[in-house]
Amino acid sequence: MAERSITLEATISALAEQKKYPALRDILVTMNPADVAALFDELEEHTLPLLFRLLPKDQAAETFVEMDTDTQELLIRGFSDSELKEVVDELYVDDAVDLVEEMPANVVKRILRQADAETRKLINEILKYPDDSAGSIMTTEFVDLRPTMTAVDAIKHIKRTGVDSETINTCYITDNGKRLIGAVSIRAIILAEDEEPMADVMEDNVISIGTLADQEEAVSMFTKYNFTALPVVDGEGRLVGIITVDDAMDVMETEATEDIEIMGGVTPIDKPYLKTSAFQFWKSRIPWLMLLMISATFTGMILNHFEDALAAVTALTLFIPMLMDTGGNSGSQCSVTVIRALSLGDLSFSDLVAVIWKEIRVGVLCGLSLAVVAFGKIMLIDHLLLHNDGVTVLVALTVCLTLALVVLVAKIVGCILPMLADKLGFDPAVMSSPFITTIVDALSLLIYFCIAQQLLQL
Amino acid sequence: MAERSITLEATISALAEQKKYPALRDILVTMNPADVAALFDELEEHTLPLLFRLLPKDQAAETFVEMDTDTQELLIRGFSDSELKEVVDELYVDDAVDLVEEMPANVVKRILRQADAETRKLINEILKYPDDSAGSIMTTEFVDLRPTMTAVDAIKHIKRTGVDSETINTCYITDNGKRLIGAVSIRAIILAEDEEPMADVMEDNVISIGTLADQEEAVSMFTKYNFTALPVVDGEGRLVGIITVDDAMDVMETEATEDIEIMGGVTPIDKPYLKTSAFQFWKSRIPWLMLLMISATFTGMILNHFEDALAAVTALTLFIPMLMDTGGNSGSQCSVTVIRALSLGDLSFSDLVAVIWKEIRVGVLCGLSLAVVAFGKIMLIDHLLLHNDGVTVLVALTVCLTLALVVLVAKIVGCILPMLADKLGFDPAVMSSPFITTIVDALSLLIYFCIAQQLLQL
Repeated sequence: MAERSITLEATISALAEQKKYPALRDILVTMNPADVAALFDELEEHTLPLLFRLLPKDQAAETFVEMDTDTQELLIRGFSDSELKEVVDELYVDDAVDLVEEMPANVVKRILRQADAETRKLINEILKYPDDSAGSIMTTEFVDLRPTMTAVDAIKHIKRTGVDSETINTCYITDNGKRLIGAVSIRAIILAEDEEPMADVMEDNVISIGTLADQEEAVSMFTKYNFTALPVVDGEGRLVGIITVDDAMDVMETEATEDIEIMGGVTPIDKPYLKTSAFQFWKSRIPWLMLLMISATFTGMILNHFEDALAAVTALTLFIPMLMDTGGNSGSQCSVTVIRALSLGDLSFSDLVAVIWKEIRVGVLCGLSLAVVAFGKIMLIDHLLLHNDGVTVLVALTVCLTLALVVLVAKIVGCILPMLADKLGFDPAVMSSPFITTIVDALSLLIYFCIAQQLLQL
Repeated sequence: MAERSITLEATISALAEQKKYPALRDILVTMNPADVAALFDELEEHTLPLLFRLLPKDQAAETFVEMDTDTQELLIRGFSDSELKEVVDELYVDDAVDLVEEMPANVVKRILRQADAETRKLINEILKYPDDSAGSIMTTEFVDLRPTMTAVDAIKHIKRTGVDSETINTCYITDNGKRLIGAVSIRAIILAEDEEPMADVMEDNVISIGTLADQEEAVSMFTKYNFTALPVVDGEGRLVGIITVDDAMDVMETEATEDIEIMGGVTPIDKPYLKTSAFQFWKSRIPWLMLLMISATFTGMILNHFEDALAAVTALTLFIPMLMDTGGNSGSQCSVTVIRALSLGDLSFSDLVAVIWKEIRVGVLCGLSLAVVAFGKIMLIDHLLLHNDGVTVLVALTVCLTLALVVLVAKIVGCILPMLADKLGFDPAVMSSPFITTIVDALSLLIYFCIAQQLLQL
């Protein structure tokens, strides 16, 4: 993919240098707008406006939508007012909203000035919805039909208004009060008898979502019901917009990325890796690092408290990293599984007891298998092979008993914390690997020294 | 969601006990198949077949597809041959394939016996494609049109054949050799003039995917081009099927889950949490735990080697957990970001130098800020507040210098390993938190003791 773009980019740049505009246009019009956009993102600043002007009007608008924010801004700053108006007129409302949200204030002003009054009103309405709400990702362009329209009427209506609608695959039936009463696929309309009224063809149990619902809820409705569009209604049940499946997929991808980043202890950045500056990465990573480093004070205090025990049996120190790592890994395995199940809706807080009970059994199984192998390993490698006299059978027993207990405790902590966070309305992804590791580390050390005190009579 | 199902479930069960079948049917037919399926998954075994038989034929098939594998198997075992045939006849080919892949051999035999010869042939063809290939998730039911057909012809053709096709939102144009030459949305057909031939309406640069391409590639084409269906062609460019957007979304969700699980050091399990046994969880988690525990032998050996240094300055031990954790966290932050960028296609191996250079700068920024704060914290808390005499200014310097270096090294390791894995054809997700932590731990200790030997003259 990347390689093809590079060669193509070179060809295009060369043609642009030689001012072979007809050849350039011929190449560009055969390409998909997403590919043209990817190409344009790589171009040098001075060739960009030139090439963009070669595109036919509708391809230009579609390409514009797919470009990086930086490239869009560059283009807009170079546009004359009439050029800007041409692009803005061709944009779907939801794409125009995205654009307005991303651009700096002075560019936004220019865009809104060029949009016609109706579009400006629609953009402002969508902008009112909170971030991450269903309303904020919907488009207000859809086909609505009346229940009394026949199939022939409906197709006429679609022909008249459909060009402006982002998807006509599903049309919606509204009553006189604009309330959503049914949905009908374009397929059903085509397959219907000519004179059949929409009321007979439509599906009358329409599933819809409120404007203020979370966008993640919208996505899970797409995956559950296999929709290609989801109607959005206001508090009175009036149809105000639709969410299209391509936007749902984008949200799904973004949410998965956010979950993954939060699980890795990073504040999500909504930008491609190479476009993010080192300083931005620093800002997104340092809070967790700082917090976790400072909370490691506890592990230091525990070690401090048991300094005499460590001095008496120095061999105990050797196994601290292994115990801490294994505990951390056990806990994060469990938290990752539970966090993902929560976000897919497979688990809810009411399952807490079942989950704990399952993790206890998994913990016992994992703990015992690890302890047995660790005991063999310690006696064989540390005791026999490395001739470490400090590593006695009793020390090995202490380590393995701790290991089994730590794994068990880690599994329990790893499942309870995310579920609790979810219940309290936090993002459960926060309760993942880095956080769990810090807690489990402190617990591991406590367990280790308590067992050591008992077994080794310290 | 869960709560609503529970109340509804109780109502349904009560109605079933009282044999109020007409009322039950009235409730069920108003519901979306996905909701009926969720309800049926919770029902007791003996009421299930009874209620399923109340559903109208097409709703029954749609509901069947949405149910859990276990429930499906239960139902099929209770079906008479003619009941089974009714359901199988209503299934789309790709859903039938999914069913055949999930059922035990004897059930599969019964299903294939009930399918008509044509369907059986199609099922077997799709089954031939490798797991995770584009061919394995396509459906062979689509509308193909000829370039010479007029808009009126096309709509007639769709009316005649469209009922069987999973999506008619996009129709495909093929030549006499079945080769894909164009695509046309149903919207374009409706908006076209009656006598306009498809050759004039169609988009002739159709983007398609090969049957053997990876399904993830198909998903990234959906997100890039905002398709609702993607045509699948064989080696000779002949159209053999289409992938619909709902299946692409399912793949996207499954792949994200797999990435997250692998990053957490868990072998992915393709089952909801509550349906997975403790033993299955054990199997999916123990390999990584075992491997990482055993590789922690290295950290033990390093500590063993520097035992004298530790004995001389016992205060050094106090900071081992903090250094290891911070190193692990730094590394996993970086690896998580890079792994996600790789899987979204934002990064490729050719960016390696740029990535390393960026991570070096991030590492220096993070390392320095952490070191400064840590120095203050150690002097304030450990030295002044806890009166730990062992914690001298030199020890604090050793710790902070190590901290800065460890963070830098962790960032570099955390970005190189996933990119290397990707280049070598492994899943980069493997190179995440647990793995990186283990490597960084060993490096941290080495750096710690080397600096300690220099600064503290051990």
